[in-house]
Amino acid sequence: MSSTGNAVVLNGQGKRVFIQEVATRDGFQIEPRMVPTQDKIALIDRLSQCGLSKIEVTSFTSPKAIPTLADAEDVMRGIARVPGVTYAALVPNMRGAERAVDCDVDELNLVMSVSETHNLANLRMTPGQSFQQAAQVAAAVRSSRTSLNLSLSCAFGCPMEGQIPTDTVLTWAARAVEAGIGGITLCDTTGMAWPSQVFARCSAFRLAFPQTTLTVHLHNTRGMALANVLAALQAGVDRFDGALGGLGGCPYAPGASGNVCTEDMVHMLELLNYDTGTNLGALLEASRLLPGLIGHDTNGQVAKAGRTHDLHPTPDYVETARQHALSKAPA
Amino acid sequence: MSSTGNAVVLNGQGKRVFIQEVATRDGFQIEPRMVPTQDKIALIDRLSQCGLSKIEVTSFTSPKAIPTLADAEDVMRGIARVPGVTYAALVPNMRGAERAVDCDVDELNLVMSVSETHNLANLRMTPGQSFQQAAQVAAAVRSSRTSLNLSLSCAFGCPMEGQIPTDTVLTWAARAVEAGIGGITLCDTTGMAWPSQVFARCSAFRLAFPQTTLTVHLHNTRGMALANVLAALQAGVDRFDGALGGLGGCPYAPGASGNVCTEDMVHMLELLNYDTGTNLGALLEASRLLPGLIGHDTNGQVAKAGRTHDLHPTPDYVETARQHALSKAPA
Repeated sequence: MSSTGNAVVLNGQGKRVFIQEVATRDGFQIEPRMVPTQDKIALIDRLSQCGLSKIEVTSFTSPKAIPTLADAEDVMRGIARVPGVTYAALVPNMRGAERAVDCDVDELNLVMSVSETHNLANLRMTPGQSFQQAAQVAAAVRSSRTSLNLSLSCAFGCPMEGQIPTDTVLTWAARAVEAGIGGITLCDTTGMAWPSQVFARCSAFRLAFPQTTLTVHLHNTRGMALANVLAALQAGVDRFDGALGGLGGCPYAPGASGNVCTEDMVHMLELLNYDTGTNLGALLEASRLLPGLIGHDTNGQVAKAGRTHDLHPTPDYVETARQHALSKAPA
Repeated sequence: MSSTGNAVVLNGQGKRVFIQEVATRDGFQIEPRMVPTQDKIALIDRLSQCGLSKIEVTSFTSPKAIPTLADAEDVMRGIARVPGVTYAALVPNMRGAERAVDCDVDELNLVMSVSETHNLANLRMTPGQSFQQAAQVAAAVRSSRTSLNLSLSCAFGCPMEGQIPTDTVLTWAARAVEAGIGGITLCDTTGMAWPSQVFARCSAFRLAFPQTTLTVHLHNTRGMALANVLAALQAGVDRFDGALGGLGGCPYAPGASGNVCTEDMVHMLELLNYDTGTNLGALLEASRLLPGLIGHDTNGQVAKAGRTHDLHPTPDYVETARQHALSKAPA
């Protein structure tokens, strides 16, 4: 819906957008049962063949905090890396960064919340203290091949504080850029974003930080994930996180949807004539394996309904009905 | 996202949009168990208090074809009508129209598919034969107070034929307008629509028929319902069908979502600063009654997650964490 004169243009006209998969980190971390290490590796190896730009493999956090990702080293070392795919991992602190670098992770995804209450609730630190840790990691890896991304949680609202001013988000982003962090993710951690807000916030970000790689990380908690993708596209965003099968969730909304579903997002983007670089058929096949791995159904819609252009056979009785109809008075 | 110069405007700026509820017809018709008549009446009476513009109460079809709506007369006569709300019913043919008029239905919703295969499969007639029936009904009620709407099924694609040309849709619409039908609904019957297509098709319709009341009827089969609402808004559409709890479905996609969820759509529209005329809190209360009526969970997201602006209390431990964090080196 970028405007050219008076026309509204929704068509991507072949523009490249980058799809980043977070299911094995953001999805698996909240599953009640741990997916076996070998199954994680097999899934990631399959995802590596799907044309994704980045895969957030795991999180190098305390096994006590997130037991289902306690196998971070084994997974990271067990996968077969495909050139062109960035293999990232979430790291909450220096200790996590060291573990990740030991496993030769391509990109460290640091995390802090722009909401003080949310940061204290999740990380038992102020946002400033979280940022200091991130800056410390940034300083430590500066001369290495490891790239850095900072995820700003609650960038579209905090479930406890409510709306967070755009300026607060931009101020933390500015400090990150200054600390040498090359990528920033605006996270709609609990699915509070809505399209006009996403457009405004992403536009402001891109204007302020044209050289910084911007990712938008959306959740479908209130059904607006793909509408928000559409709004972000209009603001020029070309990089989106997604979780296969829409895995993940929000602890504040039991039963609600999780991350934007990767394959549903890719399906829409391809219909809009964006070039996602991915193989949607392969993503759908991978998504259909998830219930076997996690023991329950997922929120993926296209995996159930098929693609818009996947047609259904015409039932045999239609031809009989046609002959019968045509034998009556023509219309 | 209507464009003013180079700015993209997603904000509704207070514009009125009209919400039409179809759950008790399009939703209940595919439920395996029949909702008791008194429960239907109680639900509709509750919905009448929610500020909806129209309620499609039931369908005057053969009880053999749709047994769960066999109580059409009882429901229609049992409800307490609220001034300002249009009480509509689907009628497949002249017999249905007579039954509906006998119950003093405000608006007859006629139906035909723009896909020949779909029309034959569903109604055992050609689209032309279905149109003849609609025109016959139109002629019969011309001098009465009953208003007419024609729903064009598969207006955004047919699951068997695939894409239907815009010209085909506009040609049927032209014939309907000529026959004196005042309203037309473009139905995405099996959830095949995508945003750029919705924008193009609705724009073409509005250009061709500026005097005709246009409704857009979307399904969430592939997760794009709210993205399609956003695209339709940009094309100037101001009237949407929705089903409470996202009831309804698509026989070609078992397990897939149904109609766009009324309360999730209203929630997005209000965040976008559109005036829906509805009481979202009352709609959410009504939606939360559905599982008790139909015996299973629904696809409504906001009913589970709460509204974006409904905040959660800050857990007590956060204050302790804050004190502890502040006692360390400040950041």
